[in-house]
Amino acid sequence: MAKVKLDEIDHQILDMLIDNTRTPFTDIAKKLLISAGTVHVRVKKMEEAGIIKGSSLTLDYVKLGYAFIAYVGIFLEKTHQTKFVMERLEQIPNVTVAHITTGKFNIFCKIRAKDTNHAKNIIFAVDDIEGISRTETMISLEESINDKKRLMHKIFNDL
Amino acid sequence: MAKVKLDEIDHQILDMLIDNTRTPFTDIAKKLLISAGTVHVRVKKMEEAGIIKGSSLTLDYVKLGYAFIAYVGIFLEKTHQTKFVMERLEQIPNVTVAHITTGKFNIFCKIRAKDTNHAKNIIFAVDDIEGISRTETMISLEESINDKKRLMHKIFNDL
Amino acid sequence: MAKVKLDEIDHQILDMLIDNTRTPFTDIAKKLLISAGTVHVRVKKMEEAGIIKGSSLTLDYVKLGYAFIAYVGIFLEKTHQTKFVMERLEQIPNVTVAHITTGKFNIFCKIRAKDTNHAKNIIFAVDDIEGISRTETMISLEESINDKKRLMHKIFNDL
Amino acid sequence: MAKVKLDEIDHQILDMLIDNTRTPFTDIAKKLLISAGTVHVRVKKMEEAGIIKGSSLTLDYVKLGYAFIAYVGIFLEKTHQTKFVMERLEQIPNVTVAHITTGKFNIFCKIRAKDTNHAKNIIFAVDDIEGISRTETMISLEESINDKKRLMHKIFNDL
Amino acid sequence: MAKVKLDEIDHQILDMLIDNTRTPFTDIAKKLLISAGTVHVRVKKMEEAGIIKGSSLTLDYVKLGYAFIAYVGIFLEKTHQTKFVMERLEQIPNVTVAHITTGKFNIFCKIRAKDTNHAKNIIFAVDDIEGISRTETMISLEESINDKKRLMHKIFNDL
Amino acid sequence: MAKVKLDEIDHQILDMLIDNTRTPFTDIAKKLLISAGTVHVRVKKMEEAGIIKGSSLTLDYVKLGYAFIAYVGIFLEKTHQTKFVMERLEQIPNVTVAHITTGKFNIFCKIRAKDTNHAKNIIFAVDDIEGISRTETMISLEESINDKKRLMHKIFNDL
Amino acid sequence: MAKVKLDEIDHQILDMLIDNTRTPFTDIAKKLLISAGTVHVRVKKMEEAGIIKGSSLTLDYVKLGYAFIAYVGIFLEKTHQTKFVMERLEQIPNVTVAHITTGKFNIFCKIRAKDTNHAKNIIFAVDDIEGISRTETMISLEESINDKKRLMHKIFNDL
Amino acid sequence: MAKVKLDEIDHQILDMLIDNTRTPFTDIAKKLLISAGTVHVRVKKMEEAGIIKGSSLTLDYVKLGYAFIAYVGIFLEKTHQTKFVMERLEQIPNVTVAHITTGKFNIFCKIRAKDTNHAKNIIFAVDDIEGISRTETMISLEESINDKKRLMHKIFNDL
Repeated sequence: MAKVKLDEIDHQILDMLIDNTRTPFTDIAKKLLISAGTVHVRVKKMEEAGIIKGSSLTLDYVKLGYAFIAYVGIFLEKTHQTKFVMERLEQIPNVTVAHITTGKFNIFCKIRAKDTNHAKNIIFAVDDIEGISRTETMISLEESINDKKRLMHKIFNDL
Repeated sequence: MAKVKLDEIDHQILDMLIDNTRTPFTDIAKKLLISAGTVHVRVKKMEEAGIIKGSSLTLDYVKLGYAFIAYVGIFLEKTHQTKFVMERLEQIPNVTVAHITTGKFNIFCKIRAKDTNHAKNIIFAVDDIEGISRTETMISLEESINDKKRLMHKIFNDL
Repeated sequence: MAKVKLDEIDHQILDMLIDNTRTPFTDIAKKLLISAGTVHVRVKKMEEAGIIKGSSLTLDYVKLGYAFIAYVGIFLEKTHQTKFVMERLEQIPNVTVAHITTGKFNIFCKIRAKDTNHAKNIIFAVDDIEGISRTETMISLEESINDKKRLMHKIFNDL
Repeated sequence: MAKVKLDEIDHQILDMLIDNTRTPFTDIAKKLLISAGTVHVRVKKMEEAGIIKGSSLTLDYVKLGYAFIAYVGIFLEKTHQTKFVMERLEQIPNVTVAHITTGKFNIFCKIRAKDTNHAKNIIFAVDDIEGISRTETMISLEESINDKKRLMHKIFNDL
Repeated sequence: MAKVKLDEIDHQILDMLIDNTRTPFTDIAKKLLISAGTVHVRVKKMEEAGIIKGSSLTLDYVKLGYAFIAYVGIFLEKTHQTKFVMERLEQIPNVTVAHITTGKFNIFCKIRAKDTNHAKNIIFAVDDIEGISRTETMISLEESINDKKRLMHKIFNDL
Repeated sequence: MAKVKLDEIDHQILDMLIDNTRTPFTDIAKKLLISAGTVHVRVKKMEEAGIIKGSSLTLDYVKLGYAFIAYVGIFLEKTHQTKFVMERLEQIPNVTVAHITTGKFNIFCKIRAKDTNHAKNIIFAVDDIEGISRTETMISLEESINDKKRLMHKIFNDL
Repeated sequence: MAKVKLDEIDHQILDMLIDNTRTPFTDIAKKLLISAGTVHVRVKKMEEAGIIKGSSLTLDYVKLGYAFIAYVGIFLEKTHQTKFVMERLEQIPNVTVAHITTGKFNIFCKIRAKDTNHAKNIIFAVDDIEGISRTETMISLEESINDKKRLMHKIFNDL
Repeated sequence: MAKVKLDEIDHQILDMLIDNTRTPFTDIAKKLLISAGTVHVRVKKMEEAGIIKGSSLTLDYVKLGYAFIAYVGIFLEKTHQTKFVMERLEQIPNVTVAHITTGKFNIFCKIRAKDTNHAKNIIFAVDDIEGISRTETMISLEESINDKKRLMHKIFNDL
């Protein structure tokens, strides 16, 4: 797969948007001493190249009443069911992340729930997907780091 | 902790921002038949209440050359070192998520790397943090779901 | 769920009953300098609110010939069988405690038996419940702490 | 150890007290067609023989705000520290049960906490006891059975 | 079960037979200053009481070409198959010991074989018994202790 | 190592002694139609060659009050301590068998005890041997097979 | 099985061929002060005896784009399927090594792939072989040693 | 790293050498209708590019008395010791393969030995390397596949 080439200007634009996706293009332009039109063109280019896939709000789940996080390891009956099971998992909005993994699990996913009882119901819903033979759950006692920005900045500094 | 009360208008504003954090407030106002000033006030209120903590770009890590994801389970020598170790982990930008967990690990984290060799170096850097006695790594073969938006919409529909 | 509010008097009554559930209300009344009728009313209130669910004798199982304690971890074939299996477990009086758990087991329970051979028969009875695929047993070599009173006192001191 | 001999009358007295430890002796006497004095003598005898060790209230922990239950498996550095560690565990009132066990853990205990965060602090307090090298925690999603009465009745029916 | 009472003379007779089951009764009699007839009567009594169940030769398996020892942990599909599986195991003479166990295995057995390849065939024969779902094997690299005599002497010294 | 050659007569002698080590040589001689002297010479030859290492009584441990059997897996701090630890294990008569093994344990041994409490003390004595870092115990619920005679007969039939 | 006897000359020939299988026989002959015909005869003899089974090129897999190595542990449904499963594994050229093993896996194999995604497809192909119930994968982060020559030289020095 | 480009002729040359590294260049030339000089140039080019790293004899280890294969998983005290430990492992010729791995082990290696006792000594030598805290061994009962040729042919067919 051909990697997209980004130049120094692109990196600086991304660097500013990473911190605040709502930064107006005119502010970016002023800081980089380029025209707002150039910022617009560059961002558009990176969106079309698929590098920028979108943006997301960072909400405080605890304040919204969703303080419970668990990681669920899934054992499948047969790995050819992987795609089918993933589609079912995608229908459970509380499953926010899911990976096909090596090691003892076939699939490994992250869920967010309101509390212990809510988590139980979600885990039961996962457990009952056809093709899943067993799950193992690990409870998060505290989400200490959840921050992609440090990595994003590092990627653009390293490029 | 007193939960912040959000009304129907707040929910609809969040619902639109979740899909695209760059949606102009004038567009939101037009759709909800309210003034742009009201949108502004509501968003400000939710930011001050800490419900909206910010926004983040969704980049395509594969296109940026960071295709390798691993989950690393960490065993500490003593749990009173948890805070100290978390601070050291935070200095490694490739550690994008870290949780204090129940089960066999004390800390469980997610790392993004360029390839197997890069991952090895990051894992070694984690392993050599003082207070960590051992780690176990699980490699992601495919990130099939990574999407908080379904959950966010559900939260606002349920409220 | 609305928590019941208990005042200082309630706490002191509970504190005395925790140590000896047979303490006569007149003794409690004398100590707290209130009428026996008040004690009666308060206890009734707490029973109706469901805070006091009853009382239980503390017997010496070793002297009664039930010296053998084991913890049994249960793997189910499917978690939708949980409720059904719990009902079957409840029919085995030697199963004194049972939890739905995270981690590797679906259900985790405690059994009391006379000796190794008796335990074997109980474990076999558990194993043969429909829907249970496998169990793992951990034997207690000594029950060193079994005392809820310290916690109860602490709860009322903390309130 | 010489087992205490209980006769039919003793069994029937225990059977009634198991259901409600506050049952007045006069009620028991009336039902069994014996004198209240006899009931008193029998109960005293069983207390002195150590068969009846006391009584305890059954409170609703959920209503008291203690809804979180976890089982913690403890690995010691050396088993000769068992006694020392047990004494330290006893100073943590949230540890309501603790056993010396076979299998992978040296000690296995049950804790009650208010919520995830509270549990984290208790687990950390356990982890930091001198002589403990590591712990593994299993969270209860639901306490489905916690009832010694069925066993007690069975014991007296079997005797 | 009523335990058989053995006196000092019985202990001394057993003590001598433990070291060499072929010791003539006349030698035992001379040493204990009793008649050979008494020795005969005592041994007979202990055989009838089932305390002495027989005697066995101690052969050197390595010299006979059976140097390979393995322990095999067996997982059953259902524990009600235990008796059936034990009968099948008994038909494989290389299975010299088998226990019903707690922990992760249902049955745990010891096998003796000529070499790696022979062991493979025996393990396969065990694996294919109906009702066995899986086995795990642990190879002995050296049998350092295999000696019941120390325990037997201790038992008779302790009695 | 040169294997000793045994002929048909040797096999038949061993076959008879396996069933009862006290069988008089005259009985063996009569059955095999050879002289008692020949039996004596043959047995002596096999003893000198080290094939017959001795004989042992088969006692009923349950009747002697030793009903409790456990398997203990031992983790060493360093394998160069193996020999030292084995010598210490040999001083505990309740350790009747001990192997150096592959798999997760360094040493695997079998112990016989009177009951749960006695087993605890023996396991603690093992645990406290210098060089042992940890042990895991598996309890036998029933010793279903303990019989080397089937194997011995098979060996001589196969030779 | 009768072992083939090799003399000093054979060892020296093998020693030279181990380092470079393409060494001309005339070079070997010159060095050992024997005729090239003798070298030819000796090599032929060792080939016929099956000691030399062939030769293989040592290629640089990383340069050929096959940098990804994984070890896959296989659980079978029943061990009598071992032979059948091995034949299926042999049809996947990326499975370069496969063993029947003791321990928790029935079969243990090594695979080489281009990258994470390619590895996933190979693991899925393995997983879907009939008779395989589950697999566990361990990823190599670096192949630090892959060298049989040291052992071969040692074997011939020891002989 | 710039991958070397190989053309169709290179592939065919490699394809023939894979089957027999001693194939004379004149035979290869004849078959491919090119000159022996061209074959020589091409092979030299691939050796200089590092694609061909050498060749190795395929010996029958069983016939040479090395029938015992084991896989040893190594736990390090600290991963910064990895390089040091690898250098020590390289001094043990019986360690033919060693990988830095993800999962529960830090290093995973393969050893070849004469028999159980020899394997024990090699494992002990590995165990006693400074920086290794523990090892776990898995014994091969049969090496069913050990063949890189299928993969090599496939690579050149796919290129």
